[in-house]
Amino acid sequence: METELIRRLAHVVGDEGLVLDEAAQAPYVEDWLGKWRGRTPVVVRPRNTTEVAAVMRLCRQSGTPVVPQGGNTGMSGGAAPDDSGAQVILSLNRMTRIREVDPVNNTMTVDAGVLLADVQRAARDAGRYFPLSLGAEGSCTIGGNLATNAGGTAVLRYGNTRDLALGLEVVLPDGRVWSGLRGLRKDNTGYDLRGLFIGSEGTLGIITGAVLKLYPAPLGHATAWVGAASPACIVSLLSRLQAQCGERLTAFEMMSARCVDLVRAHVSGAVCPLEGDHPYHALVQLSDVAPEGLPELLERSLAHVLEDGLIADAAIAASETQARSMWRLREGISQAQVRAGKAVKHDIALPISRLAAFIDEADAALAAEFEGLPIVNFGHVGDGNLHYNVLLPPDVSQDDYARLTAALNRRVHDLVAQRGGSISAEHGVGRLRRDELRRYKSAVEMDLMLMIKRALDPDQLMNPGKLL
Amino acid sequence: METELIRRLAHVVGDEGLVLDEAAQAPYVEDWLGKWRGRTPVVVRPRNTTEVAAVMRLCRQSGTPVVPQGGNTGMSGGAAPDDSGAQVILSLNRMTRIREVDPVNNTMTVDAGVLLADVQRAARDAGRYFPLSLGAEGSCTIGGNLATNAGGTAVLRYGNTRDLALGLEVVLPDGRVWSGLRGLRKDNTGYDLRGLFIGSEGTLGIITGAVLKLYPAPLGHATAWVGAASPACIVSLLSRLQAQCGERLTAFEMMSARCVDLVRAHVSGAVCPLEGDHPYHALVQLSDVAPEGLPELLERSLAHVLEDGLIADAAIAASETQARSMWRLREGISQAQVRAGKAVKHDIALPISRLAAFIDEADAALAAEFEGLPIVNFGHVGDGNLHYNVLLPPDVSQDDYARLTAALNRRVHDLVAQRGGSISAEHGVGRLRRDELRRYKSAVEMDLMLMIKRALDPDQLMNPGKLL
Repeated sequence: METELIRRLAHVVGDEGLVLDEAAQAPYVEDWLGKWRGRTPVVVRPRNTTEVAAVMRLCRQSGTPVVPQGGNTGMSGGAAPDDSGAQVILSLNRMTRIREVDPVNNTMTVDAGVLLADVQRAARDAGRYFPLSLGAEGSCTIGGNLATNAGGTAVLRYGNTRDLALGLEVVLPDGRVWSGLRGLRKDNTGYDLRGLFIGSEGTLGIITGAVLKLYPAPLGHATAWVGAASPACIVSLLSRLQAQCGERLTAFEMMSARCVDLVRAHVSGAVCPLEGDHPYHALVQLSDVAPEGLPELLERSLAHVLEDGLIADAAIAASETQARSMWRLREGISQAQVRAGKAVKHDIALPISRLAAFIDEADAALAAEFEGLPIVNFGHVGDGNLHYNVLLPPDVSQDDYARLTAALNRRVHDLVAQRGGSISAEHGVGRLRRDELRRYKSAVEMDLMLMIKRALDPDQLMNPGKLL
Repeated sequence: METELIRRLAHVVGDEGLVLDEAAQAPYVEDWLGKWRGRTPVVVRPRNTTEVAAVMRLCRQSGTPVVPQGGNTGMSGGAAPDDSGAQVILSLNRMTRIREVDPVNNTMTVDAGVLLADVQRAARDAGRYFPLSLGAEGSCTIGGNLATNAGGTAVLRYGNTRDLALGLEVVLPDGRVWSGLRGLRKDNTGYDLRGLFIGSEGTLGIITGAVLKLYPAPLGHATAWVGAASPACIVSLLSRLQAQCGERLTAFEMMSARCVDLVRAHVSGAVCPLEGDHPYHALVQLSDVAPEGLPELLERSLAHVLEDGLIADAAIAASETQARSMWRLREGISQAQVRAGKAVKHDIALPISRLAAFIDEADAALAAEFEGLPIVNFGHVGDGNLHYNVLLPPDVSQDDYARLTAALNRRVHDLVAQRGGSISAEHGVGRLRRDELRRYKSAVEMDLMLMIKRALDPDQLMNPGKLL
């Protein structure tokens, strides 16, 4: 049966479109974090939408479950096969065509397998800007970004991936193709299928193409590093900058002193732009189509809040080099954290008005209940998104690791839920948060999602074991 | 049976929550355009979500179809009952609570029955801005705006209603309540139910509350009126202004010379700010949190395009009074059109890069095939949205009106579909475009929508005869 399926798949995608060898399958069956390792009879790599549809029809006929995969850079195991060896991996990594760039409509139509960095580059080449930006941009695909509704560092101004796509092309679980590649800013002719497939983590169909929104290129930039006494001060700074800078405010990141110390200890060349000790830091970035005036605006705005005593200190980058150095300090946190040892990670979101109180309460609860385990607290505060992580002792046993992970997840996520927050702000549910989801979603909401899942994928073939 | 249902409904909403008298029912059973007039046994006006849920349970038990209704100001008959007399109207117009304003989170939580103008006012009172704005704002409800994903004049910068709501509360067809009133900028914990209910025109459930996004108040404004030779010139102007003004560009409206002439003929006090004859006109508005600098920016930007010969003339409003007068000229088109007689209206969207070619082709086709019937062409060109209307002779018979409407719809919408456009950009499908939808949507897309409809509303009780 399996041999017969593989023979038929080869007929569709060619022998070079199948990965059967176990060693060659390694980058597909194991996720990059090394957290999930599964098995697959075959990795199928179609070249175009027609082939994806043919593959899907074959899998459906044989009742074979399908795991769609982009760059396999997810944080939640959403693209990982289970260890049954029954799930076929459908990789989009040969579908790398940029189908059309339309600078007048400010849109770009792409295959799902195009690397995010290549999307950014194609936009730049056309004198436009595609704002989605995240750590994995050199290896993640736009299809994966769409399937997981990826976030990143420019959400404050441009929104999540769902806000950046006007149209989609999707191969449905029955092998039919929904051609919704519309490049329209307004279209009120039915249900928002586009929004439904985006963020559905491959459980409703396979996104094979998209029409992306482009923006005028921002030519002016200003970057600053701020020191403050508390998260409450940082949140107040956010409100002030929004009022004074409006949509020029492109990034607003926060990190605790421990984050800065970690980066300085573990990442060579990392320097904090401010003297003195500050419990919390913020990285602020403005951008604008106008090439000039932003450093002055940022300086004026920060001078006001300094005078009012809301923040303790601030430094504005005087050059592109200094701005890059500030971003390296922020972006070094993930790497420094890995070098510092094991961590229990949380990707949470809260209403911004409840963020500071959450941090106070969670810090106190963890200090009391988890023997002072160090907290690595940073995130995209402009979006209410915190990576509220907890470092474990270097010598933690496998058992203690599992026990502490469960206990910390429960404690942190319960506090998040009490304040109307989300237990997965930008990383998705995948396998990582699937069981927790039932605890925090209402029965009605779970049921609504299951009704849609059953309607669109009655044979339950699409990415089983993920999300729902 | 019906008497028994009404008795039970009275038990839920009180006698004052029912409208049984035929004269009192008139504003509910007839739409404001006078296009659709139906019948209902009773208009039910619940005071809160619990009552809506109880009403829905009673209707479900008795198999009674429900027509949800907000301000009854829709353009497509989406809130109109049919003439069977079997459909209960569920009006949200007693649910007018602003539940919470959170200026730090930049959100507002409201009942669905709050008037759009009251939402705008509450935002202003909190020092914030709610950008949705449209002609009916004094009488439409935010619930109706959400149900139809309303557009308006600020979409270019702030998006459609779907982009302006972070969370929803919905009473489902089975009477259960989905409490999705989250005020989060990032939340990747499942399918986008929010986006699905928004724009579903009451066919999947009843939106009873929402968390809306607020913005910093724009304090600076600049408005200009432009004359140009053709739609192609106007579209080029749009690209230039986007590059030079970025997100300050808040509104970009186009109208043909005939629109301007119509307003001058039919609306007292209307004056065109430009001398001379221009085949096409544009109204441009910039806004910004910074109170100053915009008129100068707009002047510089327009001077460049004037020098390049892209536009023929431009006038920048020197005062708030002049700016209002420019907007009156634009907003007077609808009224002038009504006074000029019957019209066949189209609310279409196109990729902006195909807009000028569409107008050329459609103008030529209609001139050749419809004996020079005058075309009233205007719209939110920044969103690719045209109201491409055709005036009929004053003495047109009822039969000719019906025949011409069908023929013009077919001709215009076929041209729109050929260019990848939408036959309903912002007005929705309702009853007006329901039959046409099947012609322009693929079988796959219709089927996807029907699968969702059947899954969420298996008894087909929600707003039957609309959209699908």
